[in-house]
Amino acid sequence: MPNKYFEKLKPYLDKNSSFETVLNLIDWDNETLAPIESSEYTSKTVGIISDEYFKSIINDEVKNTLKKLNNEKEFEKLTCIEKSIIKELNKKYDELESIPKEEYVKFKELTSKAVNIWTKAKEKSDFSIFAPILKEILEFNKKFAKYRLKSYTEKYRKDDKKDVVLYDVILNDFEEGFTTKQLDEFFEKIKKELIPVVKKAVKDSEKIDDKFNSLKYDIDKQEKFCNWLAGYLGFDFNKGVIARSAHPFTTSLHNHDVRITNHFYENNLISAIFSVIHETGHALYEMNIGNDITQTIIGTGSSIGIHESQSRFMENQIGKSKTFWKPIYSKLQDTFKEQLQDVSLDDFIKVINKSAVNITRTEADELTYSFHIIIRYELEKMLFSDEITIEDLPKIWNKKYEEYLGIKPKNDGEGVLQDIHWACGNFGYFPSYALGNAIAAQIFSHMKSIMPIDEYLENGNLTPIVEYLREHIHKYGKMKKTNEFLEEMMNEKLDVKYYIDYLKEKYN
Amino acid sequence: MPNKYFEKLKPYLDKNSSFETVLNLIDWDNETLAPIESSEYTSKTVGIISDEYFKSIINDEVKNTLKKLNNEKEFEKLTCIEKSIIKELNKKYDELESIPKEEYVKFKELTSKAVNIWTKAKEKSDFSIFAPILKEILEFNKKFAKYRLKSYTEKYRKDDKKDVVLYDVILNDFEEGFTTKQLDEFFEKIKKELIPVVKKAVKDSEKIDDKFNSLKYDIDKQEKFCNWLAGYLGFDFNKGVIARSAHPFTTSLHNHDVRITNHFYENNLISAIFSVIHETGHALYEMNIGNDITQTIIGTGSSIGIHESQSRFMENQIGKSKTFWKPIYSKLQDTFKEQLQDVSLDDFIKVINKSAVNITRTEADELTYSFHIIIRYELEKMLFSDEITIEDLPKIWNKKYEEYLGIKPKNDGEGVLQDIHWACGNFGYFPSYALGNAIAAQIFSHMKSIMPIDEYLENGNLTPIVEYLREHIHKYGKMKKTNEFLEEMMNEKLDVKYYIDYLKEKYN
Repeated sequence: MPNKYFEKLKPYLDKNSSFETVLNLIDWDNETLAPIESSEYTSKTVGIISDEYFKSIINDEVKNTLKKLNNEKEFEKLTCIEKSIIKELNKKYDELESIPKEEYVKFKELTSKAVNIWTKAKEKSDFSIFAPILKEILEFNKKFAKYRLKSYTEKYRKDDKKDVVLYDVILNDFEEGFTTKQLDEFFEKIKKELIPVVKKAVKDSEKIDDKFNSLKYDIDKQEKFCNWLAGYLGFDFNKGVIARSAHPFTTSLHNHDVRITNHFYENNLISAIFSVIHETGHALYEMNIGNDITQTIIGTGSSIGIHESQSRFMENQIGKSKTFWKPIYSKLQDTFKEQLQDVSLDDFIKVINKSAVNITRTEADELTYSFHIIIRYELEKMLFSDEITIEDLPKIWNKKYEEYLGIKPKNDGEGVLQDIHWACGNFGYFPSYALGNAIAAQIFSHMKSIMPIDEYLENGNLTPIVEYLREHIHKYGKMKKTNEFLEEMMNEKLDVKYYIDYLKEKYN
Repeated sequence: MPNKYFEKLKPYLDKNSSFETVLNLIDWDNETLAPIESSEYTSKTVGIISDEYFKSIINDEVKNTLKKLNNEKEFEKLTCIEKSIIKELNKKYDELESIPKEEYVKFKELTSKAVNIWTKAKEKSDFSIFAPILKEILEFNKKFAKYRLKSYTEKYRKDDKKDVVLYDVILNDFEEGFTTKQLDEFFEKIKKELIPVVKKAVKDSEKIDDKFNSLKYDIDKQEKFCNWLAGYLGFDFNKGVIARSAHPFTTSLHNHDVRITNHFYENNLISAIFSVIHETGHALYEMNIGNDITQTIIGTGSSIGIHESQSRFMENQIGKSKTFWKPIYSKLQDTFKEQLQDVSLDDFIKVINKSAVNITRTEADELTYSFHIIIRYELEKMLFSDEITIEDLPKIWNKKYEEYLGIKPKNDGEGVLQDIHWACGNFGYFPSYALGNAIAAQIFSHMKSIMPIDEYLENGNLTPIVEYLREHIHKYGKMKKTNEFLEEMMNEKLDVKYYIDYLKEKYN
């Protein structure tokens, strides 16, 4: 018999999920298709839908019913899925309740507009166009974090209250249970262990001739190959679409409508190929969410870090291996006969694994990638502790790039404006990328020990690999957390050593 | 000082407009991009948003506030725009209030699914795939019309109650003030006057050699030319986008985001060209809606008939004239050198104005077009008076095509399945196309008498023409009705004679 309290919540949960779907669709549309003058007007709609989204959860009936369900006796009566939904709803409720609705709506309207302004600023490589709205976004982020600081501390940090900093609140949103202190250690280990490796690898890589990659590649042909590649990896075109946007991303309306984008450069073949592999990793996750939980509050990826582990796994552990390309490299050569006829598979593999310092995060090799994240992480920490202001960003951004990677952006477009995240209001997001890399390396190490991955890849048989991920991670949505997945697979929590070992082995 | 009752309504109106925007976006997405398996799941979201749309207007606060505002003394205090909004809201309120919310939501979910089923049925030319859901849709339509029959009769037909039929209720939704009786007369005149003209024109046209039109035309090149043509007509790509879909259509999120689609055939050049001119006519209307009324309940085209008059005006009166093509035909020739080098402008003009019986409504010439409408009109009348059932449709459809146009569809795909309208739940819609043609001819006759249209066209200067339409029709949205527009422009109501005279002159 269905639980009467849970039944009472259902219409609210359904509404909440529908408004989220709608907001995701508007976002997708805004970034792939909507005309340039649209967003100023559509942001009014975004504001109103966000308001409804907010109200669908933050209201007295939900509050009282949740209270009833949080009673241990009542909670135990729920099914496993219902329990997960209530846990997630509690989290969402606490998050939203502490923020005045008007401010929440204003913030949503603001970020809806900001994406367009960021796009213009990036086109013109002019940070001053973006700075005023970014300042407003940051202020909202900080204000919201302050509202929630107390309840965050009560819920997650009872035992180490004195170490809590404001930035922890938003870090926890993206990766539950992870703190600034932990991440400081995580990144320090990476710095300590990898800086020497980077220097050597970059020097070694200088010999690798990658001229072929900057020849001219017809964009329509690139797109056709990349879309084929997505299908090869398991992307189901009956349940998803691929479009173009300024910055590749994945979004999901539900498990039967998952969308990714790609971005093409005429003089860079590798970029779009690895973007599509990366986004397909995300898409497979969302397509494999169980039918029993799609269109619910738990029917999406568990966390940003886990999500990123799935995209990075495909992009790096799978997509950069020789065995992956063995059965399909000739197809790429056939697509670009003129450019690739003299490039052997071995040469190609060397180039896609070449370590070189790149000014752009999304174009970075595996080894230097974490340093792009460390820079953003350190800047965000400083913004949240009021050590610096928005106006300081370009200068410090450039300084840190010189310090860690020895290069300096030519302009704001390839510097401080390169990522969309802040325009979307996503401070605290970047560290998840680094966590994702570490999780991917750990999962890969485990999978290699239990299945013949290279054999599968050589046979062009991706199914057992994706199936393993579906069965152990994807289908659960938010029902499990990062360390639960890892512990159930391999009896271990997240450990950065797998990542460091993987990179050391690869680049030494 | 703002009226306190109107202020009270505002948040409801804003919500209503936002939900409508969202439903339009989902529709657009569904028909242009969404993956095939998406709609079954997204229809759940459509149901929930439709429910919210319904509730945003149908609630006690709106009801009571409307009552206050409908008091004459209070109403007179409103601004002109506010008055129009209240009038429109009264209409919408009456329409929706009479329908039980659950049924309304069910109906919306049904039509959201039906578009996909219709697409599949059309692809397979198999009416039996579509018939079951169409039957459900028709039943809802009839039930809704029955609910509203009494209030419709009270409001619009006090003086001729005994002539009222069920079909009138839905006709009135698309063209306020028009009845089955009036349309019977309207169509009878067309039949009487035009049947002889059709026969002669079709015979005369047989001599016209249109072979060039069925040569092979690269679809990407067609698309590029068509998009350029839209811009030439005034389509503003900063406020709109053009995509592809099975059936060309226009949708609007607001006046800064207006979207049209086109459909291309490799062996038919003319089809896509006149589709894009047609849809651009619709799009200009929506782009020219005043900034003061966009995103309100009156911020869209006045009626389907008036909307269609704007698209038909562009497609036929403008787009099929020699003076329109004079400055741009060479561009088309340059685009398709091989196919068009030996086709003179005069030959081209003859072919685009050729009268020939076509099995497809959207491909019909101006002269036979009305007969496609008459067939649908007569079928819908019979369905609404229970003379026939859904199962009878293909047979009677084919019979009527033979009777009026002397041709028979090869299969259901080009027969009864050719239009999307019924899948969307739009019974009563088709007659507006015929009204639109008549309105367009009447406006054209007037405009020719007050401005040098041919001179403008020869100079490639469309601006004064579009500007006149903007100033006299577009900018008002729903603030004025069909006959008001005509009376203010030319001191006359709608009169079918302009349309008949226009066609007689053209084809005799």
